[in-house]
Amino acid sequence: MRKIAVLTSGGDAPGMNAAIRSVVRKAIFEGLEVAGVFNGYQGLIDGKIEQFQLGSVGDIIQRGGTVLRSARCPEFMTEEGRQKAVRQIKLHGIEGIVIIGGDGSFRGANELVKLNIPCACVPATIDNDINGTEFTIGFDTALNTVIEAIDKIRDTATSHERSFIIEVMGRDAGDLALWAGLGGGAESILLPEKEFDVTSVVNRIKKSADRGKKHSIIVLAEGMMPANELAEVLKKEANVDTRVSVLGHIQRGGSPSARDRVIASQYGARAVEALMEGKRSAAIGMRNHKVVDYNLEEVFTKREKLDLSLLDLAETLSI
Amino acid sequence: MRKIAVLTSGGDAPGMNAAIRSVVRKAIFEGLEVAGVFNGYQGLIDGKIEQFQLGSVGDIIQRGGTVLRSARCPEFMTEEGRQKAVRQIKLHGIEGIVIIGGDGSFRGANELVKLNIPCACVPATIDNDINGTEFTIGFDTALNTVIEAIDKIRDTATSHERSFIIEVMGRDAGDLALWAGLGGGAESILLPEKEFDVTSVVNRIKKSADRGKKHSIIVLAEGMMPANELAEVLKKEANVDTRVSVLGHIQRGGSPSARDRVIASQYGARAVEALMEGKRSAAIGMRNHKVVDYNLEEVFTKREKLDLSLLDLAETLSI
Amino acid sequence: MRKIAVLTSGGDAPGMNAAIRSVVRKAIFEGLEVAGVFNGYQGLIDGKIEQFQLGSVGDIIQRGGTVLRSARCPEFMTEEGRQKAVRQIKLHGIEGIVIIGGDGSFRGANELVKLNIPCACVPATIDNDINGTEFTIGFDTALNTVIEAIDKIRDTATSHERSFIIEVMGRDAGDLALWAGLGGGAESILLPEKEFDVTSVVNRIKKSADRGKKHSIIVLAEGMMPANELAEVLKKEANVDTRVSVLGHIQRGGSPSARDRVIASQYGARAVEALMEGKRSAAIGMRNHKVVDYNLEEVFTKREKLDLSLLDLAETLSI
Amino acid sequence: MRKIAVLTSGGDAPGMNAAIRSVVRKAIFEGLEVAGVFNGYQGLIDGKIEQFQLGSVGDIIQRGGTVLRSARCPEFMTEEGRQKAVRQIKLHGIEGIVIIGGDGSFRGANELVKLNIPCACVPATIDNDINGTEFTIGFDTALNTVIEAIDKIRDTATSHERSFIIEVMGRDAGDLALWAGLGGGAESILLPEKEFDVTSVVNRIKKSADRGKKHSIIVLAEGMMPANELAEVLKKEANVDTRVSVLGHIQRGGSPSARDRVIASQYGARAVEALMEGKRSAAIGMRNHKVVDYNLEEVFTKREKLDLSLLDLAETLSI
Repeated sequence: MRKIAVLTSGGDAPGMNAAIRSVVRKAIFEGLEVAGVFNGYQGLIDGKIEQFQLGSVGDIIQRGGTVLRSARCPEFMTEEGRQKAVRQIKLHGIEGIVIIGGDGSFRGANELVKLNIPCACVPATIDNDINGTEFTIGFDTALNTVIEAIDKIRDTATSHERSFIIEVMGRDAGDLALWAGLGGGAESILLPEKEFDVTSVVNRIKKSADRGKKHSIIVLAEGMMPANELAEVLKKEANVDTRVSVLGHIQRGGSPSARDRVIASQYGARAVEALMEGKRSAAIGMRNHKVVDYNLEEVFTKREKLDLSLLDLAETLSI
Repeated sequence: MRKIAVLTSGGDAPGMNAAIRSVVRKAIFEGLEVAGVFNGYQGLIDGKIEQFQLGSVGDIIQRGGTVLRSARCPEFMTEEGRQKAVRQIKLHGIEGIVIIGGDGSFRGANELVKLNIPCACVPATIDNDINGTEFTIGFDTALNTVIEAIDKIRDTATSHERSFIIEVMGRDAGDLALWAGLGGGAESILLPEKEFDVTSVVNRIKKSADRGKKHSIIVLAEGMMPANELAEVLKKEANVDTRVSVLGHIQRGGSPSARDRVIASQYGARAVEALMEGKRSAAIGMRNHKVVDYNLEEVFTKREKLDLSLLDLAETLSI
Repeated sequence: MRKIAVLTSGGDAPGMNAAIRSVVRKAIFEGLEVAGVFNGYQGLIDGKIEQFQLGSVGDIIQRGGTVLRSARCPEFMTEEGRQKAVRQIKLHGIEGIVIIGGDGSFRGANELVKLNIPCACVPATIDNDINGTEFTIGFDTALNTVIEAIDKIRDTATSHERSFIIEVMGRDAGDLALWAGLGGGAESILLPEKEFDVTSVVNRIKKSADRGKKHSIIVLAEGMMPANELAEVLKKEANVDTRVSVLGHIQRGGSPSARDRVIASQYGARAVEALMEGKRSAAIGMRNHKVVDYNLEEVFTKREKLDLSLLDLAETLSI
Repeated sequence: MRKIAVLTSGGDAPGMNAAIRSVVRKAIFEGLEVAGVFNGYQGLIDGKIEQFQLGSVGDIIQRGGTVLRSARCPEFMTEEGRQKAVRQIKLHGIEGIVIIGGDGSFRGANELVKLNIPCACVPATIDNDINGTEFTIGFDTALNTVIEAIDKIRDTATSHERSFIIEVMGRDAGDLALWAGLGGGAESILLPEKEFDVTSVVNRIKKSADRGKKHSIIVLAEGMMPANELAEVLKKEANVDTRVSVLGHIQRGGSPSARDRVIASQYGARAVEALMEGKRSAAIGMRNHKVVDYNLEEVFTKREKLDLSLLDLAETLSI
């Protein structure tokens, strides 16, 4: 193997830059050439590919977003688009690609694998919803962003003795809501993984009110239902007034946390190793607190369940 | 004067606790007794009044929200409610009150003044919309919260080459949007103080795109129009795609900034001085960078205009 | 088991309050009584013990430090002191104690165990130097504090093209220096676990200068040598000028990170469970990313080594 | 006037980049050409001068440090060095220079003025020690950094009931110590502007201990005496134990606060205006909360005194 490339795809996540840096430096350290592909799969099709040096990734470890940028790419969904991408890959002498992104990005990589391009996939999404790894890059930073937001909103909730619904990201996965709710001391946490039970939410608010606590924080994963809708349900079913805060895009940005920088560095380097070892279809991740690579297939076939014992714990601690 | 009281009212603002601490400690330093009134004007009516000591306000200077809590109080809008409040004030031997809050809280104070209760009003609202003072307590902290949010969203805007509308608080006043837009390097800033001109916004986005900058940040004061509406207008009128982020309640909370703690300390102490000097209807504020007190009347009669030269500057710098 | 107690001991660590909250709420949830012991082992001797309710630990999950306070306790080193402690424990009907702290605190617990008091020990120290657990409470927060400090110092290092030595905590353990150095993109990391080699440090600085990078960040664990001494060695041996920054006590404080709040919540609840299961000498921790309890003995007998592969990675990535 | 240049000099301060951006964009907006000079006065001598475009200063408003870098320049202290600089200035057709920095940088500008080069000086130093302006760029950010550090250390101080000396920057000026001490709720503040009185410090600690507060925070400006020395004095004279924390270089870095970005934007644009108006020797600053320019001479001749009423206030509030 003489030359690899790296690209980012899908929603940006804090720590993507740390992962890019790791891939580039590790590759150069190992004597490989390394190219950066801009704008995700679209850049692969368009040949937006640049040879990178050590200095190309200087001073980016602490930056949010991705210097390689990301983009949606409907063209890559077509056979023709993918063939264009493969031609560019060959043209640039690229023998393996590190794909940094989420589930959709991994599916794109899978298409390249089918066309005989070795890929190593690095999980980076604030949602933490990639099968086969305990943690994705960006989850820890987003979690801290949400926690800080909850802390701020609690100031108002306490001062005005009001209840708040805080809607956090997570279309299919409740990880962010669950961890943030537990860490933020929320009175209720609502996740797509657990059936919604209005009575239970209302009971918790009332019980909490009974012991003199007149404010409540409800953390809601967007995949469960929209916050405004929940507010209406609570009003209608139980005459409970709530304010709504939809955290939105602030959850994606910001300087990555220490943990995200460390795992991004580990994953990026491991991806280069996987390619060098001749793996043709690798996913990188953490299992039992150790960095591993495993077959990309597993991402799509195994469906992992969220550890709902954390939810029980959160409910126990917010009695 | 032997005894005063302090209360917070209206929306909470970071630095209210620093102001409470200042009032209490300054009063005790000057040999006065001082009482804390809980839950704003409602607490005044209900007699939720406690004698405070030096230690009552220990370890609160850095906390967001208000330890005295705040509440809406329709009862105080009635003659009867106000009479109850006056009875409690007399009952507790209170000879003057420091009111910490925004415009509505000051109007409440004005009613007390009419009933012969000396009041000194300390401006605390993140909106910075009190006439007669350059800065209100909480504005600086909220500004930094908004700036941090813009910085985070810019990570995604840059990575995905997308445009964002960021809606910030400010029903009648564009101060927060204006300062945050300037400090956040926004491409456009929309305020209630300036007529909305869709052509101008679109032109700025296009000009910026022409020189290769494919993302834009538009900061919008909520008082201008809802963010979703603006997004629709931009789509319909100019086929410009934007994402929307409504910052919401995170803007009210958080540990106060250095500046807010300093002015809160200054204002609180000055309020006690004003009462001791026999002022019966004082508003505290900053003019020409100096802490002053002035007649509460001025808050309601003078209407100050936002300094729109900052808006010109912001537009100049985001060409 | 009807009643347990909880105390914090040793240097404070962010997340201790989240752990206290978890112990108290879990205990009450399980139908136990729970008492808070103030001032660590000294408070046990002095009987500074209070019955806690759900509300006793309200609004503390986000606070740094420990509401139970901590203190050195030479008296507990004596047989007599320990007997006093045991008398207080019996007097208050306490049948098991959760000890939150570091290595020294665990040794204290071991003495209580010998006197037939069941103990469950929760690891909380920013140094991450407790055998048998992957993570201690406080480590993640301290790591983020150090990373932020490195980011700030890098601004000056880059602007002035200067080299900096940043001394971080860690008398015997290099975990904090290692993770922070990797996450902060440091050019060199010096740890007590690896022999100091001045030539290697100087070579790295020179190599980095050769490729045009005129600033370097060296992260140094305090246990290795004092920063000023290192600066002198570098000057004398290699004529390399460096500035020194000793981060000091800021590393201990601050609102706990999301991760620290979550593991503190998990550990605290697990400690209560261990006591309820009749364990007489438990240490709580994380192994293979799972919360476990194990025999306290292991903390003192097994000596774990720092994973130096992270150091190799850091060196690879900062070439 | 057709072309101007901008340089940064002296210690870096957060907000310098926002000021550079403002100078460049304002100049281009006004139809001028604008060049960036790298490495301060040394770059002027060496001709490290680059034509800047709008995009040259994109995405820097939020960055700490200075993209133009800074450097000490002994050569500029010589007549010969300054002549070289003037030759480069003429060579590049530069008709006026904006100098961003502190007192020493302003003195350098004064030398250029004597050689008939129009200069406009923008005050940027975390020390806030430039005569003629209420605020320098960087002061507000540094203040918030110090406040956060004090908040963190207070966690440990409270938990362990210990007293801390926190040494902050400020060789000749106590502004940072004074504002941070007031905003951080310090028990004592020691400044070069006020004679040191060990008895008074000790009395404050003891008085505070008498009313049950067993920890104290002493904020010390480095210009007063080194923190270690103060610790020894307190131990020797009064048997008071203290811990020491020297905040050091973290005070210089970090993303600029909202306020620093706003005034940097204002000052930078005003500097360009001053040059365009034909001013040959301007200093920019804020007076009575308004942005002004005044003669550079005033910086060196008027000696302003720190407003010690803030110190009285801090002492009143920490009784």
